[in-house]
Amino acid sequence: MQPIDFKDVTIGGGFWGELQRKNAEVSVYNIHKRFAETGRFRAMKCIRDDAHKPHVFWDSDIAKWLESVANILAKKEDPQLKAWADEAIADICNSQLPCGYFNCYFQVYEPENIFRKRPEHELYCAGHLIEAAVALHEAGVDDKLYAAMIRYADYIYERFYVKKDAGFVTCGHPEIELALVKLYRATGAQKYLDLADFFIEERGRHNEETYAFTYPVYHLDHAPVREQKTAEGHAVRALYLYIAMADVARLKGDRELADTCETLFEDIIGKKMYITGGTGSSYHGETFTFAYDLPNIFAYSETCAAIALAFFCDRLARIRNRAVYHEIFERVLYNNVLAGESRDGKGFFYVNPLEFHENIYDYNEGLKTKLFCPIPERVEVFDCSCCPPNLTRFIESIGSYIYAEEGGTVYVNQYISSSARVGGAQLLIESAMPYGGTARVRVQGKADLRLRVPAWRGGVSMKVNGRRAEPQIADGYIALACDGDTAIDLDFRIRPRFVYANENVWYDNGRKAVEYGPLVLCAESCDNGPNLRAVRVRSLAGAKVSAGEGPFALEVPAERLRTSAALYSYEPPVPERCTLKLIPYFAWANRGKGDMQVWFL
Amino acid sequence: MQPIDFKDVTIGGGFWGELQRKNAEVSVYNIHKRFAETGRFRAMKCIRDDAHKPHVFWDSDIAKWLESVANILAKKEDPQLKAWADEAIADICNSQLPCGYFNCYFQVYEPENIFRKRPEHELYCAGHLIEAAVALHEAGVDDKLYAAMIRYADYIYERFYVKKDAGFVTCGHPEIELALVKLYRATGAQKYLDLADFFIEERGRHNEETYAFTYPVYHLDHAPVREQKTAEGHAVRALYLYIAMADVARLKGDRELADTCETLFEDIIGKKMYITGGTGSSYHGETFTFAYDLPNIFAYSETCAAIALAFFCDRLARIRNRAVYHEIFERVLYNNVLAGESRDGKGFFYVNPLEFHENIYDYNEGLKTKLFCPIPERVEVFDCSCCPPNLTRFIESIGSYIYAEEGGTVYVNQYISSSARVGGAQLLIESAMPYGGTARVRVQGKADLRLRVPAWRGGVSMKVNGRRAEPQIADGYIALACDGDTAIDLDFRIRPRFVYANENVWYDNGRKAVEYGPLVLCAESCDNGPNLRAVRVRSLAGAKVSAGEGPFALEVPAERLRTSAALYSYEPPVPERCTLKLIPYFAWANRGKGDMQVWFL
Repeated sequence: MQPIDFKDVTIGGGFWGELQRKNAEVSVYNIHKRFAETGRFRAMKCIRDDAHKPHVFWDSDIAKWLESVANILAKKEDPQLKAWADEAIADICNSQLPCGYFNCYFQVYEPENIFRKRPEHELYCAGHLIEAAVALHEAGVDDKLYAAMIRYADYIYERFYVKKDAGFVTCGHPEIELALVKLYRATGAQKYLDLADFFIEERGRHNEETYAFTYPVYHLDHAPVREQKTAEGHAVRALYLYIAMADVARLKGDRELADTCETLFEDIIGKKMYITGGTGSSYHGETFTFAYDLPNIFAYSETCAAIALAFFCDRLARIRNRAVYHEIFERVLYNNVLAGESRDGKGFFYVNPLEFHENIYDYNEGLKTKLFCPIPERVEVFDCSCCPPNLTRFIESIGSYIYAEEGGTVYVNQYISSSARVGGAQLLIESAMPYGGTARVRVQGKADLRLRVPAWRGGVSMKVNGRRAEPQIADGYIALACDGDTAIDLDFRIRPRFVYANENVWYDNGRKAVEYGPLVLCAESCDNGPNLRAVRVRSLAGAKVSAGEGPFALEVPAERLRTSAALYSYEPPVPERCTLKLIPYFAWANRGKGDMQVWFL
Repeated sequence: MQPIDFKDVTIGGGFWGELQRKNAEVSVYNIHKRFAETGRFRAMKCIRDDAHKPHVFWDSDIAKWLESVANILAKKEDPQLKAWADEAIADICNSQLPCGYFNCYFQVYEPENIFRKRPEHELYCAGHLIEAAVALHEAGVDDKLYAAMIRYADYIYERFYVKKDAGFVTCGHPEIELALVKLYRATGAQKYLDLADFFIEERGRHNEETYAFTYPVYHLDHAPVREQKTAEGHAVRALYLYIAMADVARLKGDRELADTCETLFEDIIGKKMYITGGTGSSYHGETFTFAYDLPNIFAYSETCAAIALAFFCDRLARIRNRAVYHEIFERVLYNNVLAGESRDGKGFFYVNPLEFHENIYDYNEGLKTKLFCPIPERVEVFDCSCCPPNLTRFIESIGSYIYAEEGGTVYVNQYISSSARVGGAQLLIESAMPYGGTARVRVQGKADLRLRVPAWRGGVSMKVNGRRAEPQIADGYIALACDGDTAIDLDFRIRPRFVYANENVWYDNGRKAVEYGPLVLCAESCDNGPNLRAVRVRSLAGAKVSAGEGPFALEVPAERLRTSAALYSYEPPVPERCTLKLIPYFAWANRGKGDMQVWFL
């Protein structure tokens, strides 16, 4: 299956048009401002300043910002962003060493340790710079960074693949692998695919350096990748590796490697994923832990891990399409990914808990030695600020995940208002999602169409050119042969539904979440008062959609289980009727500090 | 109210007779063995051995062991224990400095820092040595340590109260205060009460040294004690301080200080106590946190804190008796305190969680940098081994909490099979508790009797000399005037009951615990299979007591909420009938590693 690239897709208005507008006009600007204020752009000049040493991963922050800009400029002009990008690119190119190497930290502060400190993100940074360069090149924005990064990639190839004289075989943080696949695609040069393949296959075959606090599993070094059957270690590192594995499996037609990816995917979605699509439940090493370990309050669930899981879904679909990949993509996208950003587009979450208690946070803030605790409001920059520009580049490229083509068949995988030419046909989607369950798909021309049926549907009804038609559903898609000018009206009968977690998820037994279409809903104390844990929802029969102050809210008849003031009592709690106001999970924490909850009695 | 001292109470057979036998024959012996093996006894000789430096609190370990031995020897002969005690006492007395000072760590390794390092437990150790000395003296076992500790107390008085030339005003770990009250009672010398009062009142009035990781609140230094209205800081330190405050309030008739103690007690039992009587919910600083913060899996709930809360209940009852003090004492005693010891009497818990998941423990054990996690089986000694000898001294003195007298009125506060002379009467209790709800109280002589009515009663029926009598209950006691030879048969109609936590306890909403008389019950996976979180108990109507392999079990009709294998599903879980086998909480973790749970759906 070949997706239609976002550069060939026009996003219409509606939900995603608005998100992209905010992304291009607010988020990318504000990240530039904060990255400039924190010295990240200045660091690209590679001028020694011992008082303001850059982090080893700052290159990747700038690279992801550049990739975001490339994705914007591919579709519209923005002289300011272009000027800033040119400046950063010039700084990087001017600082690049004659051999091709570039790293704003190592070449300035530890040149003697270039390619010697395995956990320190060097090839991770290189990978993001390569991704940015390819994006800028393909957007027709810039070729200078592209040329520079080809030189860098050639240098990496020389050192790691030909001479093998670097201090390590594989980087502690995967990313270079998937970037090399992109470079292979852009250049057509086999060596980059070979190098990606090499980095993938060599992992787990050497006793390589890891952080002092952890074991090789953290870096996915515990076994050769083909023997890895469960998702382990640092979630983002793991998923970036899996993405590259899926890429290589597809490009080389490697069924065994593809099956490994599929097994890892099933382990994640079957045992290690929050209902929001979040993965990596532990803050300790930002890792996958063990099956069904999905704590809500102290969830880690990094925004970057969610984005990475979305990428992984997309890569798997390209090998052998299954509706479940798009279903999980949709879950990750509308919940954990979107939660990463504040309503105003300026603030970001790194950590995405499914339950928040103001008291826990306040108590922890009062400690002299603080423990890990998610934060109640998004912030504009982090010391480790990987998530913000990851989000902006992803939001800008959302068009890539809507349409696809395979052997003459045209797929609609996500209902995002947009238009594109797919195969011989022109497609136009007008979608009410995520707040509504309807979509109109117009097809001009001839197309053997497959329209994905969302897993959350309350039903499916379809009209073709105004006339009711019985949808033929197979493998999660409606099949429909179109010819000429066809208007397909779809109604997936969106309605609130309870979702139950597997009985082995200790944190959720006896509780349920409420979903509305692709949205996981949550309640906040600013709407519902404190102590959401005591709220019981028996039925969704009387639930009402209300616009409220945000774009969407669901009011549900519920009850609060009231007890006496005693700490322990023989008297059962008494239910007291109330209305529970639910909002999309992604919209939480936009109205000041307060409690939040996803799973209800 | 004046309790009858355990030395004047004979414990009969039954539950407590067996516990005390095990305590005297196994636990105290085994602790001696482990303390000897770990160098604690040798350390009392104060011979420098840099390879085996003692911990600063080892004096207190030996002191509590000596106090345990004193309590045993007060009632029976044991030449071996006596010989060991004599040896330790001789070592301490021989090592004591001419000024009276003794500390096996400071005088050997840091003499220049004697009374200079406030957080380092010096006066805490002194306090426990004084308690041991008083116990040995009052048991008629030894007067050498008593004389030595009077000299030490005099030296402390001189340095801290007269010259005020020590490096701190109050010790980082309260304990000396309550010990000085005991010394005052034993010697009649006012100076010790004055010194206790001084240490209490000066706390929070100086900006004294605390550990780097925390604030003054950890040491209860955040305010003068009379202004402390909520239980804060390190739970054991806090409770040891409150005990002394209650002692001084009583001895000096200080109503304000007594009210402060009462306020602190209400804060604890109303907002900060586990159903097991555990306090100090956080491992981070072993502290009280905030109201209703009572996590089950990562509960700290130190055994010493439970013992301290029991002591505090007793001290409050002496000021102005209320049935609630004995009710909480009973809850603490039969649950958190007894859980501290293994069935064989050799192993001990420091931390007492209310829920245990083997998978969490195993995962954590597999980490290179481990996080805090309670352990699944009791161990014979800890690096910080405060709990084991605290438990043995307490179990041995349990007789002190049964009977009391006040203004000619005779109180029975705990139904423990025993006999004692109280006022002018001889009392004998034969009790089925904790596994049964009946007790026979025989009174020979004249007594204005008050028999406590347990809060857990299903009802009360009473026979006096074989004839049904209507109990006159007031303030939690049955009042009964006895004259001659009176046999009172009580039946508190023990039955299993659901207990519900306050709606603000997030961890327990929608769940209930099962109590049987004074016992909180729990389920273990070895009886019930894994995943106890999915077990729902709707009613206790069909519950049956079964002897099983332990002395007590309760079999309850229940259901498991079964789900499909999917991680998330729109299908509600399906209840599957099962029998839930419950055992006393204190008896958990005696049959190998496994899951345990107190709160059920």
